[in-house]
Amino acid sequence: MQRAAALVRRGCCPRPPGPWGRSQSSAAAEASAVLKVRPERSRRERILTLESMNPQVKAVEYAVRGPIVLKAGEIELELQRGIKKPFTEVIRANIGDAHAMGQQPITFLRQVMALCTYPNLLDSPSFPEDAKKRARRILQACGGNSLGSYSASQGVNCIREDVAAYITRRDGGVPADPDNIYLTTGASDGISTILKILVSGGGKSRTGVMIPIPQYPLYSAVISELDAIQVNYYLDEDNCWALNVNELRRALWEAKEHCNPKVLCIINPGNPTGQVQNRKCIEDVIHFAWEEKLFLLADEVYQDNVYSPDCKFQSFKKVLYEMGPEYSSNVELASFHSTSKGYMGECGYRGGYMEVINLHPEIKGQLVKLLSVRLCPPVSGQAAMDIVVNPPVPGEESFEQFSREKESVLGNLAKKAKLTEDMFNQVPGIHCNPLQGAMYAFPRIFIPAKALEAAQAHKMAPDMFYCMKLLEETGICVVPGSGFGQKEGTHHFRMTILPPVEKLKTVLQKVKDFHIKFLEKYA
Amino acid sequence: MQRAAALVRRGCCPRPPGPWGRSQSSAAAEASAVLKVRPERSRRERILTLESMNPQVKAVEYAVRGPIVLKAGEIELELQRGIKKPFTEVIRANIGDAHAMGQQPITFLRQVMALCTYPNLLDSPSFPEDAKKRARRILQACGGNSLGSYSASQGVNCIREDVAAYITRRDGGVPADPDNIYLTTGASDGISTILKILVSGGGKSRTGVMIPIPQYPLYSAVISELDAIQVNYYLDEDNCWALNVNELRRALWEAKEHCNPKVLCIINPGNPTGQVQNRKCIEDVIHFAWEEKLFLLADEVYQDNVYSPDCKFQSFKKVLYEMGPEYSSNVELASFHSTSKGYMGECGYRGGYMEVINLHPEIKGQLVKLLSVRLCPPVSGQAAMDIVVNPPVPGEESFEQFSREKESVLGNLAKKAKLTEDMFNQVPGIHCNPLQGAMYAFPRIFIPAKALEAAQAHKMAPDMFYCMKLLEETGICVVPGSGFGQKEGTHHFRMTILPPVEKLKTVLQKVKDFHIKFLEKYA
Repeated sequence: MQRAAALVRRGCCPRPPGPWGRSQSSAAAEASAVLKVRPERSRRERILTLESMNPQVKAVEYAVRGPIVLKAGEIELELQRGIKKPFTEVIRANIGDAHAMGQQPITFLRQVMALCTYPNLLDSPSFPEDAKKRARRILQACGGNSLGSYSASQGVNCIREDVAAYITRRDGGVPADPDNIYLTTGASDGISTILKILVSGGGKSRTGVMIPIPQYPLYSAVISELDAIQVNYYLDEDNCWALNVNELRRALWEAKEHCNPKVLCIINPGNPTGQVQNRKCIEDVIHFAWEEKLFLLADEVYQDNVYSPDCKFQSFKKVLYEMGPEYSSNVELASFHSTSKGYMGECGYRGGYMEVINLHPEIKGQLVKLLSVRLCPPVSGQAAMDIVVNPPVPGEESFEQFSREKESVLGNLAKKAKLTEDMFNQVPGIHCNPLQGAMYAFPRIFIPAKALEAAQAHKMAPDMFYCMKLLEETGICVVPGSGFGQKEGTHHFRMTILPPVEKLKTVLQKVKDFHIKFLEKYA
Repeated sequence: MQRAAALVRRGCCPRPPGPWGRSQSSAAAEASAVLKVRPERSRRERILTLESMNPQVKAVEYAVRGPIVLKAGEIELELQRGIKKPFTEVIRANIGDAHAMGQQPITFLRQVMALCTYPNLLDSPSFPEDAKKRARRILQACGGNSLGSYSASQGVNCIREDVAAYITRRDGGVPADPDNIYLTTGASDGISTILKILVSGGGKSRTGVMIPIPQYPLYSAVISELDAIQVNYYLDEDNCWALNVNELRRALWEAKEHCNPKVLCIINPGNPTGQVQNRKCIEDVIHFAWEEKLFLLADEVYQDNVYSPDCKFQSFKKVLYEMGPEYSSNVELASFHSTSKGYMGECGYRGGYMEVINLHPEIKGQLVKLLSVRLCPPVSGQAAMDIVVNPPVPGEESFEQFSREKESVLGNLAKKAKLTEDMFNQVPGIHCNPLQGAMYAFPRIFIPAKALEAAQAHKMAPDMFYCMKLLEETGICVVPGSGFGQKEGTHHFRMTILPPVEKLKTVLQKVKDFHIKFLEKYA
């Protein structure tokens, strides 16, 4: 039947001449003609449509690059076309993209990368010896001494050794095993790989993944891709976004009614919420994971981004070991880091690592197998990760400049964190918790009843409506809180504090003016 | 109940003192003690085990980095430890890793990459102007003029423009639209992304994906990860691994009994089989896809690797357009390319692109959304892709050296392809089809009955048994045909032709000697 139909269609469309049947130029002419006027009559329905596509992928949402960012792109094009706006540029405060905001790369890191990329430079007097030493070490560990070779699926050995040494220093001597280190294509890649292995079961035994609300939307996106069950636990906004174990317990026991919660994700320092967990809180979470048999995912990519003088980053790994063997030899923990944040802000290289401890040996084999299908993470990103964990040390030629650059970036971020908190809290109808760490403000905004109605009329979440107006009137692009999750009836947005101080002041002033006008308009 | 039990466990394990309760050094001491003697009594079963893990991931196989490669690694370590072997080095002929085999990077590509990495070099007289021109163009398109910024999810705009211009040149004027170009983290990433969107349905309506046998095992791995249905069509070994449309039809109609075949994957030039499809064959495949409503995936990463004088690479896109509007405006086609193969062999940068045509506009939005969750492909890999599609042209300073380097790599590969075919075909019990393209030989090997029994006794596939023996006796690491799929009762292995000519001759001689001994031993 179907084949008959096919033959009819075939009849109505004569086969083209055989091989080399026509000159390329005429073919090209026809082709461009085709492209210009595609005869609508010959359009057939597509095989891949919203109805036929993977429903889990359809369900994915990723606010950080969602509709508001597409709108920002349109506005930029309009500005380029000379269309008048109440502003002259779009400020993309929606994403933690340091270099795009004018932050300069760390010189030492780029010198080593350049030497690895083009080894002829190893003879150049214009590169410091310590940079050459790093480059030679990395190249010697690469096949054919080239960044162009595949690395081992788990990453270049000597880089995994440097990561392990870094973790051991960072954690005051708590040992790290290079064999537990996996280099990744950024933290996002590591997180989705671990979740991919963890998800199983059907119906009520489908894997549940506990994530904070507000969360970084990579988590909800991957959970949806994997058709896992998202289990929300709420951070306590009235208490500086603290994580409360009783809330974890509530979320877990409620979830057990309809799924099998196996994974607990923690983001510390918090994204988008900026809180830094204290020692007691980390201990409580670890004990809870131990007690309830949960696999711990610790997203620690902002470990260098702590600003509040009374806060200190402590890794889950360190606390786990210091809690004693019952924990340190039993709790399965994956911790993630990245080249993209911290003081280096090398997002483009897509470099990162994960340390996975207490993994069942058979599962380690499964993990390496899964990683090997993608062959290896970008070797350039692996090299960048090496410099992040193996920077110049006192006595080395580049130490002084490196320290200056690092302190300048982190010092400015600390200033901007305080500045942002203070300025937001001066605005009626905006409340902002202290930015203890990370690189975002997540202020709570009061949206008047009339604005809620207007949003509903536009079929938009209230904070999406707010952020769209902000973008259209000021050119400032921030992400609605609804993209991260928030308590019913509360509204927020996420804004990076990455713009240079003076520019950030302007941005904050513009938000303030906009907000006051917004309150008046919808009073 | 569970909580009570937990409290008992908790009782038997006193909590550590509160925050800052002990000095780091003592903590470290304890921690290392912990690591040294983990009290077995305190071992609990793991949350993540072979039983509880994602069964689709467990089912994944990836022979190119499978058991044989793990064994090769062990042997390398033994050699390093001074353990005597009948050979002094392991030769990793299992993977197409050009630089690891001693192939030198293309100078121009690395110069541009170094300039992009460390822009201070733009003032250096030791870099050619055309390289600087490329670097400036790329940097101007990056946020903050830095490779360290995230790019758009689809990739850097000007690089997508260069890719489109390359495709148009390659296809003799058939136009390409930058908007249809997506930069990827290597071809593997692009292929799995497209398959991820395509897979849907349950039971008999689950998506079937048609792949060649022998195949490159990325396909079977991703199909298994996505829980899709693998539909095998067999290439005709007796006819130089040609693709026969009647075989496609057989596979399709049999598959329709138990799934919904929606996707047809083609690898041209073939991996591992090395055949290059002729015009007629490509037209037949396209007509078949049109007729049977299949989404076409054309894996064309070896498009620069054609050696046989009577073969010529033609892209599916070009043929599709030259077949006329009924095809060119209807058939959904994704074509994949990579920085890893060709003459540049830059595997480590994980760069690639896909061109997707006739995609439903709504699906395009879905695809960009899905890509945005991973933020962007490595920008360094995107830059490498730009140089691959935008090399020096006549009149530019670097053209002569670039051409020399390119011709030398491709010329040597052509020599090695012929050499390998000839030498294998001199060995009794080995038959090797012509290596028309790509960078592998996939010879058929005769395995005597006694060896089949020995393999069975070792619970190994016969060709795995053969390859393991080859590795243990000669240090040569090749991949068993069973890892790619092969007709029942036939046996093969895949070997790259990348080693330098002299080394390749030695390798082939060693395989020959091994094979003859093997035949005698199991006669």
